Amino acid sequence: MNVKPLGNRLLIKPVKEEKKTEGGIVLPDSAKEKPQKAEIIEIGKLEEDFDLKVGDKVIFSKYAGTEIKIDDVEYIIIDVDDVLAKIEE
Amino acid sequence: MNVKPLGNRLLIKPVKEEKKTEGGIVLPDSAKEKPQKAEIIEIGKLEEDFDLKVGDKVIFSKYAGTEIKIDDVEYIIIDVDDVLAKIEE
Amino acid sequence: MNVKPLGNRLLIKPVKEEKKTEGGIVLPDSAKEKPQKAEIIEIGKLEEDFDLKVGDKVIFSKYAGTEIKIDDVEYIIIDVDDVLAKIEE
Amino acid sequence: MNVKPLGNRLLIKPVKEEKKTEGGIVLPDSAKEKPQKAEIIEIGKLEEDFDLKVGDKVIFSKYAGTEIKIDDVEYIIIDVDDVLAKIEE
Amino acid sequence: MNVKPLGNRLLIKPVKEEKKTEGGIVLPDSAKEKPQKAEIIEIGKLEEDFDLKVGDKVIFSKYAGTEIKIDDVEYIIIDVDDVLAKIEE
Amino acid sequence: MNVKPLGNRLLIKPVKEEKKTEGGIVLPDSAKEKPQKAEIIEIGKLEEDFDLKVGDKVIFSKYAGTEIKIDDVEYIIIDVDDVLAKIEE
Amino acid sequence: MNVKPLGNRLLIKPVKEEKKTEGGIVLPDSAKEKPQKAEIIEIGKLEEDFDLKVGDKVIFSKYAGTEIKIDDVEYIIIDVDDVLAKIEE
Repeated sequence: MNVKPLGNRLLIKPVKEEKKTEGGIVLPDSAKEKPQKAEIIEIGKLEEDFDLKVGDKVIFSKYAGTEIKIDDVEYIIIDVDDVLAKIEE
Repeated sequence: MNVKPLGNRLLIKPVKEEKKTEGGIVLPDSAKEKPQKAEIIEIGKLEEDFDLKVGDKVIFSKYAGTEIKIDDVEYIIIDVDDVLAKIEE
Repeated sequence: MNVKPLGNRLLIKPVKEEKKTEGGIVLPDSAKEKPQKAEIIEIGKLEEDFDLKVGDKVIFSKYAGTEIKIDDVEYIIIDVDDVLAKIEE
Repeated sequence: MNVKPLGNRLLIKPVKEEKKTEGGIVLPDSAKEKPQKAEIIEIGKLEEDFDLKVGDKVIFSKYAGTEIKIDDVEYIIIDVDDVLAKIEE
Repeated sequence: MNVKPLGNRLLIKPVKEEKKTEGGIVLPDSAKEKPQKAEIIEIGKLEEDFDLKVGDKVIFSKYAGTEIKIDDVEYIIIDVDDVLAKIEE
Repeated sequence: MNVKPLGNRLLIKPVKEEKKTEGGIVLPDSAKEKPQKAEIIEIGKLEEDFDLKVGDKVIFSKYAGTEIKIDDVEYIIIDVDDVLAKIEE
Repeated sequence: MNVKPLGNRLLIKPVKEEKKTEGGIVLPDSAKEKPQKAEIIEIGKLEEDFDLKVGDKVIFSKYAGTEIKIDDVEYIIIDVDDVLAKIEE
């Protein structure tokens, strides 16, 4: 079973934040617009070309999007404009 | 008798949420923008191509749309932009 | 004497709601955006093609539009974008 | 001396409301957006074709426009988009 | 020395209101959006053709624009969209 | 070292206001949107042709823009749309 | 590992402000919209040509953007429209 985001949206799976993440990215709680790491699971029919694909790691604003749970795992449906950056390894 | 949504709207029938839905999707009450499952009953004259048809299951934001009752069954008239995702089985 | 709506507006005559309307549509008071049934009396110069004609029954949001009375009958002048659906019998 | 409305505006002269106006139109005080009858005195350079001419009777929202007095008679300068309907006799 | 308004703006000189102005226009204090009379002193590079020239008398909303004083005379820099009408004598 | 404004912005140097400025322009404290005099120091890549050049004196709204200091002199980075008028001598 | 900003965004590294910065630019705490100096680390796919490259020093508004930390160094993901000026040395 799949959840296919509509329009300009993505389905992402948040990555739990550790005190010090591998790769050295820490997203502070004190930040105004709390950023979080996530992995892209599904991509809607984006209007613009955003150079994003399933499996990419992204940074998004914690206050954006709508949470859903599939088989007890937490996911977020988010507008692609609320995705701030892509993490390239 | 039919209710035909006007413009960019859909007529959807909410699916009652169980503690654990079949298929494993749980839509938490704690979510900011409460998401819900529904089935598409009628489709208006959508401006864009959204790849949606009557009978599709969708996830929508609980706070969006207008409730109506037809023969004691609850329906919602909702803007297609407030439909977050399609559930593909 | 006629009242001809200007621009994107319609003149509609609300249909009194019964506990259980014929056809089975009940528009609950508890709904956020109170929907009501009405009949279209006059149509302005609509910008888009809405597939609406005089005599059509529609569902509209109770909080939209401006009430007027003609010969003691209540009418509403409403923007066509606030008409949610057409009832087809 | 003339007052020529600029842009998308009209100069209108409100028609005093009687309990029961001739023609049977009553504009209730209880209405959210208080509608009133008026006669068109001058027309600005309207961007769209609105099928309105000097002398037409219109219904407008009481809370729209700016009041001025010319020779002790009250007039209103109003945006054409705040004119709800034309009364055709 | 000149003050040349930028963009869609005008430099106007308010005309003091008397109880009864010559020409019979009275702009009531009780009006929601207090209108005032003024003379056009300078005209910016207007985007649209507004049929206005230096020396024209206009009615504008009292709450619009920015006051400046030149040689102890009060002027207002105002957006042309806040000028309601032209007075033609 | 230069500070080059980005986009539709200007770098301006406020001119201290005297009780009575030379040239007779006084910008009252009581004005809603406090206007001030300034000199243009640098010009960004303006989208429209505004007939402004380095060295021009302008009137701008006191509440617009962002203050910076360079070598102890106060400057303001301001959007060109917040510049009200040019002073021509 | 890289953090690549999406869309109209930049990744910048704030430059600590000294009482008196070299080059003489001081960005006062009392300013409404606190400006800060930063260096551009990565550039997204900007819609317009902004004449900015990696390594450029810029002035940005302190209240704009989202903070992240990479290897204990603080960075900011910011919309290019919130970058006020470029510092040219």
